[in-house]
Order: sequence, then C-alpha cells, then structure tokens
Amino acid sequence: MTPDHRGVFVPVLTPFHRDLSVDAERFVEHCRWLLAEGANGLAVFGTTSEANSLSIVERMTLLERLIERGVPPATLMPGTGCCALPDTVTLTRHAVERDCFGVLMLPPFYYKGVSDDGLYASIAEVVQRVADARLRIYLYHIPPMAGVGFSLPLIERLLKDYPRVVVGIKDSSGDWKNTEGLLGLLEAFPGFEIFPGSETHLLAALRKGGAGCISATANVNVAAISRVIRDWNKPDADALQQSISDVRAAIQKYPMVAANKAILAQFREVPEWDLVRPPLRSLDADSKTRLLQSLEVLQFDLGRRLATV
Amino acid sequence: MTPDHRGVFVPVLTPFHRDLSVDAERFVEHCRWLLAEGANGLAVFGTTSEANSLSIVERMTLLERLIERGVPPATLMPGTGCCALPDTVTLTRHAVERDCFGVLMLPPFYYKGVSDDGLYASIAEVVQRVADARLRIYLYHIPPMAGVGFSLPLIERLLKDYPRVVVGIKDSSGDWKNTEGLLGLLEAFPGFEIFPGSETHLLAALRKGGAGCISATANVNVAAISRVIRDWNKPDADALQQSISDVRAAIQKYPMVAANKAILAQFREVPEWDLVRPPLRSLDADSKTRLLQSLEVLQFDLGRRLATV
Repeated sequence: MTPDHRGVFVPVLTPFHRDLSVDAERFVEHCRWLLAEGANGLAVFGTTSEANSLSIVERMTLLERLIERGVPPATLMPGTGCCALPDTVTLTRHAVERDCFGVLMLPPFYYKGVSDDGLYASIAEVVQRVADARLRIYLYHIPPMAGVGFSLPLIERLLKDYPRVVVGIKDSSGDWKNTEGLLGLLEAFPGFEIFPGSETHLLAALRKGGAGCISATANVNVAAISRVIRDWNKPDADALQQSISDVRAAIQKYPMVAANKAILAQFREVPEWDLVRPPLRSLDADSKTRLLQSLEVLQFDLGRRLATV
Repeated sequence: MTPDHRGVFVPVLTPFHRDLSVDAERFVEHCRWLLAEGANGLAVFGTTSEANSLSIVERMTLLERLIERGVPPATLMPGTGCCALPDTVTLTRHAVERDCFGVLMLPPFYYKGVSDDGLYASIAEVVQRVADARLRIYLYHIPPMAGVGFSLPLIERLLKDYPRVVVGIKDSSGDWKNTEGLLGLLEAFPGFEIFPGSETHLLAALRKGGAGCISATANVNVAAISRVIRDWNKPDADALQQSISDVRAAIQKYPMVAANKAILAQFREVPEWDLVRPPLRSLDADSKTRLLQSLEVLQFDLGRRLATV
C-alpha cells in the first residue's frame, strides 16, 4: 500500500495578482505549505489549477520557479495534456527534463466523439516524441470537463503497449462504478496506480488497492485526507473518512476552484486568493458566507499557519 | 445583402507532411485556389483546420506565410479563441496587427457549465487587452465541439457593449432554430453578420438576412456554394441550393475533417492530403470508397485545376 507515489496529491490552486497575472511567490508558498501539511505530491496544473487558463510559457516558468525554490521534483506530477500535440510534447519533455516523477495527461479535449484509436495515437505520439526512459504518464480521466475520456479497453491497450510509461490514472469521472472498473484492472496490472479525483470514496478505493486520491479540496484539507490514508486499516478509519467526506460535501456545493480559493482568501486573510481567470468567476458574497458557515458547523480548520512551515 | 464581408468563408483545411508537421506551401496553394474559386474569405484556423491541434507559434507562422505569399489580409478571418486568455490575446493581437479584417473567436472551452458572466468577461478582457480600434470579433458558436457556447442574451449584451467590435457570429450549433433566433437579432442590430456553419440552410438564411456561410465543405465545393450566394434571388436558387445540400449530405456522413481531406487527396492525387493529427484519424479505405462513390453519383467535381489558378 505504500510504494513511493501513493498518497494524497494536490491539484494546486494557482493564485493571481489583481491584473490576473500569476502570483508565483504565493504559489510557491502554498506548495510548500501543502507538503508540510502532509501532501505526498503536487499535481500542479490540473483542472483546479486553472492550468488550461494558463499559457504554455506560464506553466513552464512556474514549474521552474517551484523547483528553484526548493520544491523537490520527486513530489511533482504536473499536468501536461493539451489539445495540440506539440504543446503536450513541449510540456511533457520539460517536466521529464526537470526530473518530475510523473505527468498527469489530459487527452486532447477539443474534438468530441473521437475514437479510442485516435486517443491511443495521441498518447503514443507523445511517448515516441518525448523518447525518454524517465517518462511516467498518469492518464487524466475527467469527461465532465474534457468531454472525452479514457475507456477501459483503451487503458488496457496502453498498459500493455507502454508498461513502464503509462503507470497510473486520475479518475475524475465522479462515477464510483468507473473507479471500480479501474480497480478491476489491478489483477492483470498490479502496479497500476489508481487515484480517484475526490476523497469521497477514498477509503473504499484504498480497501480495493487504490493508490490514494488527487483532489481539489486537498488544497484546504490535506492534513485530514492524509490521516485517512495513514490510518486506513485502523479502527477509526471510517470516522476519519466521514469527516473528510463532510468537508468535501460542503465545498462541492459550489464551483470547486472558486470555493477553494474563497476558503484560502478567508483563512489566510489574503483577498487576492479569491481571483480566478475568466471564464471562471469568484463566488458571490452570499455563496461565500454560506460556504464558510457550513464549514464552521463542521469545525473546519485550515491547519497549521504558514509561518510555522 | 453585399457589404464587404458577406459571402462564403472557408475554414481552410491544414495539410501536413508525413511527420505531421504543417505543410505551409500546400496550405498557401490551397488558400489561393479557394480564393480563385470564389471564396469571399478564409476563416483559417477553425475546427476544420485542426487549429486546436496546432501550437500558437504554428498558427502565427502560418498566418504570416500566407500574407507574405500574397493572400490579402482583407480576406482573412483567423480563429483566435483559445482556452487561455493570454493565448487568445496573443493570437488576436497578432491577427489585428497583420490587418486581418476579423477574427473568429471560440469561447474558452475547457471548463464546462460556466456562466454567461464568465464568458462575457472572457471576451471583454480580450477586447481591453488587445485595445486596438481595428479589432473585429466574430463569435464562434459551436457547442457540439466546444461544450460551451454563446447564448442569445450573452450575444445581445456583447453587441450592446461592444457595437463596433463584436460584429458577427458563426453558428455551428447545427440547429436551425438557433440560427433563426440569431436572425431575429437583426431587427435591433441590423449590421450583425450571421454565418451558419453549414451550407445546408444557406438559402433560408440569406432570405432572412444572413451574411452567407462558413462551412467545412467549402474546402471542396466553394464555387457551387458561391453561386447560391450570387444567385440567391434568381429563379434557379432553390435548384442550386439542392445541389450543394446533396454534396454536403454525402460528405457529412463521415467525420468532416478526414472526409474533406480524403476528397482533396483523391482529386489532387496527393496522398499526404489525407493526413490528420491525432486525436483525429484518416478515413478507412472502405469509408473513402463509399464517400467517393456517393460523390460520383452526384457528378461532383472539385472545380478548376490548381495549375489554372
């Protein structure tokens, strides 16, 4: 249950300045805090990170800043899947050359109704063009956003053809049946690392061989999620799971990026944390109040202060 | 009915070399042929162009090549809408600075279920950041691919707030009711240019004040489509419309990009025209045969030979 890359990974929120440029220093600070709070790794540049609202150059610059500022590449799983093959290759090669332990790869997501053959070719082209033995791909399955996804037969084909390259998946289908289907692959592919995209079914997934989770709300609740993973086979595991599920349920009533940013803005007393790039919008004042009240009822706390990190 | 920018616009196919790099020379040649055949303009870098499978640099380089090689910027309406605001601004500014008469703007298309407010902010930010009086935006409404689109209330709001900037729309909803709704805006906004994304309802749209069409199949049938626009109020208009609708119907039984490329590969005797970037796939041999047979039944011809252009 505890190979190197298992645990809770955070799809790190990207903070902005008032002019919507990236606040790299606050990003580094948040990453360091997450690791200190118990994150096993940082899935930077995911959906929660507004990665697709950033340019390729912004993403590469930010990754380099993180590493320069001492965040270990061995904790980094940047998102690198773009619509355009050359962009995916550029970002993937960059991550591999910076020694990130893996990349989280969206399928090309503009064209809908594409075939498994076409998606297979997309991944195969990236592998061949990056051509680096260090490359480790985690597939990013999130049909509610991407509009396309990785079917079980496609995943099996990739695992067979690229056994040391395609090593895991983030399942953000929001469909436990799909996660169970993936967990069923473990018999044939025991090393396959399956991360549900939410902590709601974390314990259930761990009990069936899941690798942990990669969850938006880990941006604000990583210590508690981390405890579930640590104590998954202890008597209080179900109670711990209930507690993180309650927090998740309170937050996911609202748009996830804006809600998590609103929580950080409030607890850190940094109003700029609230900023999102369009087409996303910050929570309105009323939603913010209701969200924070529901968290107060749950005795939610953000965890250690930044100064102690 | 014939202001400057009305007529048939071609979302130009992007040809590739065997290694999937862009074949800029063949692209220029195809663009010149389309204009010679009667295209009123070139909506380069649309869905049919596999624009979202190209990097930002590839798109800018290709646009510059076109202009260098004598394609008038006054015929160019490049697609510039990306997921990331900085990319949309980069491409839009580039097109405006190169004197393209307009840009065709997808909404940011990664996040689904975003609000009209968020989409409004996306367009507004681009207008403010490009800050150039020459900017003319054609909204690109294609929910079947983008997963998000421009609602009528959002369009009205943009037309009111940016009357000389937001000047038209391509409606690729594939829903005639939506096109009719847009045509209903002409009473309040008489200069608004409405282009259905297909020639199937071209005559119907023209009769209600539509501006023409921007259609994938114009890559192979532009002369005939152009005749419908020229003769729309003549007695044979319905017969001409029927003829282009028949060709369209034959082609759209297959994936559009691959089908149009297969036709060019066959008629030009250039097998490389068949190449697409993943996640798209070329037509299989059987589909190709059936497509070409159905076109033969319709006595379809590609038009003048390249050498005569």
